[in-house]
Amino acid sequence: MSQGKFAYVNDKIVALHDAFLHVSDLAIQRGYGVFDFLKIKNGHPFFIEHHLDRFFQSAKIMKLTIAHSREVLKKTVHALIEQNEMPESGIKMILTGGYSVDGYQPATSNLIVSQHSLTLPSLEQVEKGIHIITHPYAKEFPEAKTINYTMGIWLLDHLRANAAADVLYYENEIVSEFPRCNVFAVDNNGTVITPAKNILKGVTRTNVLTLAARRYTVMESDITRSDLYAAKEVFLTSTTKRILPIVSIDKKLIGDGKPGPVAKRLLEDLISLEIDDLVS
Amino acid sequence: MSQGKFAYVNDKIVALHDAFLHVSDLAIQRGYGVFDFLKIKNGHPFFIEHHLDRFFQSAKIMKLTIAHSREVLKKTVHALIEQNEMPESGIKMILTGGYSVDGYQPATSNLIVSQHSLTLPSLEQVEKGIHIITHPYAKEFPEAKTINYTMGIWLLDHLRANAAADVLYYENEIVSEFPRCNVFAVDNNGTVITPAKNILKGVTRTNVLTLAARRYTVMESDITRSDLYAAKEVFLTSTTKRILPIVSIDKKLIGDGKPGPVAKRLLEDLISLEIDDLVS
Repeated sequence: MSQGKFAYVNDKIVALHDAFLHVSDLAIQRGYGVFDFLKIKNGHPFFIEHHLDRFFQSAKIMKLTIAHSREVLKKTVHALIEQNEMPESGIKMILTGGYSVDGYQPATSNLIVSQHSLTLPSLEQVEKGIHIITHPYAKEFPEAKTINYTMGIWLLDHLRANAAADVLYYENEIVSEFPRCNVFAVDNNGTVITPAKNILKGVTRTNVLTLAARRYTVMESDITRSDLYAAKEVFLTSTTKRILPIVSIDKKLIGDGKPGPVAKRLLEDLISLEIDDLVS
Repeated sequence: MSQGKFAYVNDKIVALHDAFLHVSDLAIQRGYGVFDFLKIKNGHPFFIEHHLDRFFQSAKIMKLTIAHSREVLKKTVHALIEQNEMPESGIKMILTGGYSVDGYQPATSNLIVSQHSLTLPSLEQVEKGIHIITHPYAKEFPEAKTINYTMGIWLLDHLRANAAADVLYYENEIVSEFPRCNVFAVDNNGTVITPAKNILKGVTRTNVLTLAARRYTVMESDITRSDLYAAKEVFLTSTTKRILPIVSIDKKLIGDGKPGPVAKRLLEDLISLEIDDLVS
């Protein structure tokens, strides 16, 4: 994991090793903040308008104010891409609850923009698929991309103990999403289904829904764990992971235990869409 | 709200205005950390052994390691009390997920100890009682004092809109606790009841349970919202607020809408217990 040498804090670019927040910030005091994350390739930030829409939406849901205009945020992203010389990377924008007077009341938000190398899926994961487990949990504010990943991080050694690549949350048997990815299934009629409720609507999820609708019947609806176990294909989507086939859930094989044709076809379509965005 | 001029970060006392964490800390990146809070009077930290027990317990539940011994933590608390010259105050210890390499994996924890003036309840609140509302919510890790107060902070303007002093969480009609306080009820048989499950076991809650058992029948068990609405008395407990009578819940009057004798008697007992701890 390498980091961009420069980051942006509130209103200026600083050396990353000088990027600090005072301990009174509400992220440190109370875990309060939102963020978003962009993929960069050839110096191009993918789907930046979607990500900025969502960043402003997350802030609004959590009653935080972004003092910066979209234009300033875009200029900041481009300035970091130029100064950090990391043409293939990710850019993260975090907006916190600010320097709270009493450690509880929100104040003027702090903004941090930083750049990092990407942890991309391995070729083996793409070609052979991944194994996942499920865990009962409902995010507190699923529609906002808050910084609260307490459960996802707490589960990390549970993942390692189960040799699982990720964990899918469910409540009352209805699945929702992974800590950082959305889930899709292909049922026995070939319909592509993804949950509609109690999830963060990922930018890649939206793109995959659009692409899938060109080729398949698409449905946004509740999916139970049993539905998933019985599905022909299951896959996850995210900015970093794009589309990754899931070949077992809770140690139960999905289909024949191999990546299926729908995930493969949609990954090709998604890569084409990224190229379109890159040259647009 | 005034702040102690000095704070402790990791292994040394620094000026509070120099107390920073790097933005890679997992509290800022992912809201991951635990804390505890002590009340100080006449330079004496109340019930420090209980609070340290719980701080270590919270860290253990959240799979974090406190590199400091209890003795070092105690010495730090006393050193801050001396240097900050705030004989009546609160001391907060925060342990974060540390400087994460990839913004997700925990690293060596950062420890922050800081001192602040207390926001004590007003005389009017103690004498006339407070109005509260309820909200459906279950904490993710109720037994650990994590820094995740996303819901409590998000509800602040909802409290203001309802002229409510605090919000009591419930799930499936069973009440649990406030963001920062425990709840007690006195039923029509005069039994003092407090929830046993899905709560943080407050140090004041433990003390009040012990004190109440000397005078009344005491029970730790589930309480529904209907039970509360029909109770003779309801009150909350916390380190800062001690015991505060609750005279209405969701705009429904509790009893005759005035503070009751049990809350008053237990507050006197609690103040005596604090004096015992102070002179011990």
